[in-house]
Order: sequence, then structure tokens, then C-alpha cells
Amino acid sequence: MNELDFIQALKSQSISGVCSTVLGDDCVEIAPLRLATTDMLMDRVHFDTNTTSMELIARKAVCVNLSDLAASGAVPESLLVSLALPNSWSTETALLFHKYIAATASHYECPIIGGDTNVWKGPLVINIVATGRMHWRGQIGRHGAKAGDQIFVTGRLGGSLLSGRHLTFTPRVAESQWLLDHVPISAMMDLSDGMATDARRMADASQVDFILSRATLPIHPDCGETEEPAWEQALCDGEDFELLFCVQPQDAVFLKYNWSWPIPLTHIGEVVSGDGKVWLKDASGKTLLTKQGFVHR
Amino acid sequence: MNELDFIQALKSQSISGVCSTVLGDDCVEIAPLRLATTDMLMDRVHFDTNTTSMELIARKAVCVNLSDLAASGAVPESLLVSLALPNSWSTETALLFHKYIAATASHYECPIIGGDTNVWKGPLVINIVATGRMHWRGQIGRHGAKAGDQIFVTGRLGGSLLSGRHLTFTPRVAESQWLLDHVPISAMMDLSDGMATDARRMADASQVDFILSRATLPIHPDCGETEEPAWEQALCDGEDFELLFCVQPQDAVFLKYNWSWPIPLTHIGEVVSGDGKVWLKDASGKTLLTKQGFVHR
Repeated sequence: MNELDFIQALKSQSISGVCSTVLGDDCVEIAPLRLATTDMLMDRVHFDTNTTSMELIARKAVCVNLSDLAASGAVPESLLVSLALPNSWSTETALLFHKYIAATASHYECPIIGGDTNVWKGPLVINIVATGRMHWRGQIGRHGAKAGDQIFVTGRLGGSLLSGRHLTFTPRVAESQWLLDHVPISAMMDLSDGMATDARRMADASQVDFILSRATLPIHPDCGETEEPAWEQALCDGEDFELLFCVQPQDAVFLKYNWSWPIPLTHIGEVVSGDGKVWLKDASGKTLLTKQGFVHR
Repeated sequence: MNELDFIQALKSQSISGVCSTVLGDDCVEIAPLRLATTDMLMDRVHFDTNTTSMELIARKAVCVNLSDLAASGAVPESLLVSLALPNSWSTETALLFHKYIAATASHYECPIIGGDTNVWKGPLVINIVATGRMHWRGQIGRHGAKAGDQIFVTGRLGGSLLSGRHLTFTPRVAESQWLLDHVPISAMMDLSDGMATDARRMADASQVDFILSRATLPIHPDCGETEEPAWEQALCDGEDFELLFCVQPQDAVFLKYNWSWPIPLTHIGEVVSGDGKVWLKDASGKTLLTKQGFVHR
């Protein structure tokens, strides 16, 4: 079994009481005006305790959750941290690890308010729940993109796993708040599995097609010199944790003139009516992005 | 390292942003009038996938969280379920397991609203967060017991692990609501580590002494015929998931006359001024309950 098979199977069954983050958006409303998200990270799956410092593991475990809240437009408020610690660790090591989690939490003004601590023979497992305060515009999901919207992405894409940026990225909490303070956002998500995959998810959830312009993709300098061209790395690498979002044309104009964050904001495409397809446009025409890769048309 | 060492070390350091459930009460307030609790359960630590049915594992993972909410006086509202599933499982097995979690959630009218699903080479890990609505009397903790209060326990104690009752217990959600609807509760917790240990925790958090009457301990028929006398099993076995709570004397009278649930409610002792000690009283005098066992005085 792999994860996607299981999630696909869960979707196809309509098990009572299963919804939202299990199957789609990264956050759910847990109380009036409060959102929560949760991510479980395991050794050898999401990080490797043999090669990654505890500080960076702790940082990533917190930041992936904050990135999910940012994508929903929420301001982080608190964390619940559950740990399964290897019994080979010393108490000092465990304390240090906890201190690193608390330091990241504190940096984002999102204190650890609870959790559960366990010690076992198995590898390190971290489960974090982050709760946040919803923006007055409400919860932003991936399902609201409309034909006519323009598509934007923050920062630069590609090379995150190769360069180690996936351990040091900044969750776009402040940028997300600024965006929602100024314009309505039709749909937003954070890019965890790569633009190609995540754009398809947003287009599918919104039941529209996306047309991305290849020439405008903001390519990160971390993209390596590999067989894959840089634009393909930017499209497919994953773990960028940048914001992908859609706004109406008049708001797009506002954003282009008023964006003043140190990271770029790039207009990368248009939403058209459709049924969940993503097209990549270049000088030679349009290419369909599929799970299997690129299909020229 | 073991768990208690680590938690003790965490307590002795005052790491910024660490509080509440990490160190004491089982629930925390995550939003106005909303409480949350979280428990991580791991294969070979909290259950054994080789000997326990998936249905009972799923049931326990949900019910330990509901028991924590009940102890805080909250009504369960929703669950966030994070899973690390062994990659040796088939998709059908994983679906069935998820169905069992959803069935227990549904039974307690506490739907799964989100979570995170992962597949790995390691053993089964389940992290559940349960959120609940606070009672109008507020959150009940373990720190509010006052000298003069009377001490009560629901149900019967002992033999839970031996008999398998730890997999089939009923979280006392309804009883907790009835109690708070009728009387103020000074302090309450669910008995997970055994009366001896948990009573000491409540007495310590409240900075009072407890005097428990040995003859009144409600002994569960599950207590086995072992070298340990039944009252000692009732005191020490753990995983009873019954409610231990303190009320003022006039409210104790009300409870004795009006309790009409099918499980017993037993007056097992008195709160006196002190500093966190628990005494066991019998015909021959008072015995101090310590971590190391019983010290006659």
C-alpha cells in the first residue's frame, strides 16, 4: 500500500464522518473562527535523523503546519505537540529537541499549549497540530478558483529538496495576512508536492482549467544543473512551501503595484472554464500536465 | 531515557511556551469555550497489533481522548486523526481500520473532521486530537481540590489490563456532564495510571492531602486471583478510565441521593490540608502511598 492509493480509496468510499483535511484542504474549522491543521512527520520518511540536525527537524515539523495555516489565511495561535521519542535518546537530547520545537513556536508567536510525550523502541515520530485564528474574510480553500481569475505564486520554485531549503523555508504567514487584508482571494494553497501536482489539485477542486505560462515560472537559484531543465524542476520538485493563489483581474492589478515584500510575487497564469486540467503554455503551444508528465498538444 | 524522566526534566526546566497538557492537565483551551486533548498510541507500547483486533485498537485510540475530555467536563465535538500506517498493510486493511475509528467517533457523535495519513516501514502509530465544548462551569482541572471536599470515583477499579477492559471501557462523557449540570466539581481527572498514582497527582496539583478509605474502594470483578489482594489491584492496576473527583460536602449529599447511572458512584475519601500526600486508611491506621508502594505509619 502507498499513501495516495489509500487516500484515493478513502475518497471513493463515503465513510461517514470523514471529510475536509483527510481528503482535501489542509485546515478545518474546529470552533467558531478557529482553524486547525495537523501533520505527522516520521524519521526516514520526512527527514533523516542520521543526516539532519535536530534543530532543523524540529523547525520543519512546526513550519509545515504554519504553512498550512497560512494557506488557509489563518494566523497561528497555538500548537499541540505529540512525540514518540526513541528510547536510545538521552533525556538531555530529548530536552534539546523539545527546546528547538519551542523556539520555532515562539519565533512565530504560536506557543506549545499541550501535547503527549511517549518513548519507544521505534524511530522518531512527531505529530503537531497548529490552531489559528481565521481571517475576517473566512477560511480560504483550494476550491474557489473561478474562470477569469489570475494565478499567482509567492517566492521562487524548485531545488528545495536538493538544496536543503525544505528544512529552512519560511512559512508565508505574514504574506498571507497582507494579501487577505488587501484583496479577496478566490483560492489558495501552499505548494508542498510541486506546482504541477498542486496546481492540478486546485484546478480539480475548483472544477476549472489553469493555463500556466512557462516563461513566467519563478525559478529558484537552488535548481541544480541536472538533465531536467530548470523550469521543469520549478514545476515538479516539491516542498517549496510557497503560496499558490487566484484573484480577480482588478485585484491582480492592485497586487502588482502594491506588493512590497522581499520575495517576488509572480503572475504565472490564468484560470479558464474547464474540469481540472492544467496546461503549460510556451511559444510552441499548450502542453497538458498529467500525473504521468507532459503531453504536448 | 524513559517517559517520566523526560517529563520530569521538562517540568524542572522552564522552557518558554511549554505548559498545560505537556506537564499536567489532559486538556487545554484552544479557542473560547473549546478544549482539546491529544494522545499518541504506538504498536507494542499501548496495544499489540499481533494480539489485539484492529477494531479494539481503533476504539481505544478514540476513547482515551474522549475520556480526557470527559475529565475536563467537555462534550466531544470533533477529531483530528493522524496515522502512520505500516506499508505491509493492504489498502483494504487500512480502510477497515479507518472505518473502525470513524464508527467509534460516530457512536460518540464526534466526527473525524481532519487529519494526516502516512504510510511507512515502521509500526502503526495513531495520534488523535479530540476537541470539545467546555461546560458552562468552565474547564475542570486536577488542581482545585480543597480541604473539606469529599472524594468520589465512578465505576469499579482494577484488573483492566488483565481482563482486556482497557480496550472496551466506556469514556464517562455522559456521567461527567450530569455531574457538572448538577453540582460544582472542585477537581476531576480520569484514572489512567491507577488510583494510587493519579490520586497523588491530583493531591499534588491541588496542594492538599487525600485520605482514602481502603474498605470503600470499589473493586472490579475483573481483579484476578493473584498474590496482590484485590484492594491493591484496585488501587494500582491502571487504565480504569473512571472519573476521580472532589466536591463539597453538601454536594456530596446531593450526589449520593440522586446518582442513578447504571455504574456505581463511590465516596472513597476526604481531602485534608497538606502538601500532596495520599493516605490509605484502614482499621489499623493510616498508610502513606508513595511511588515506591505503601509506607505504614
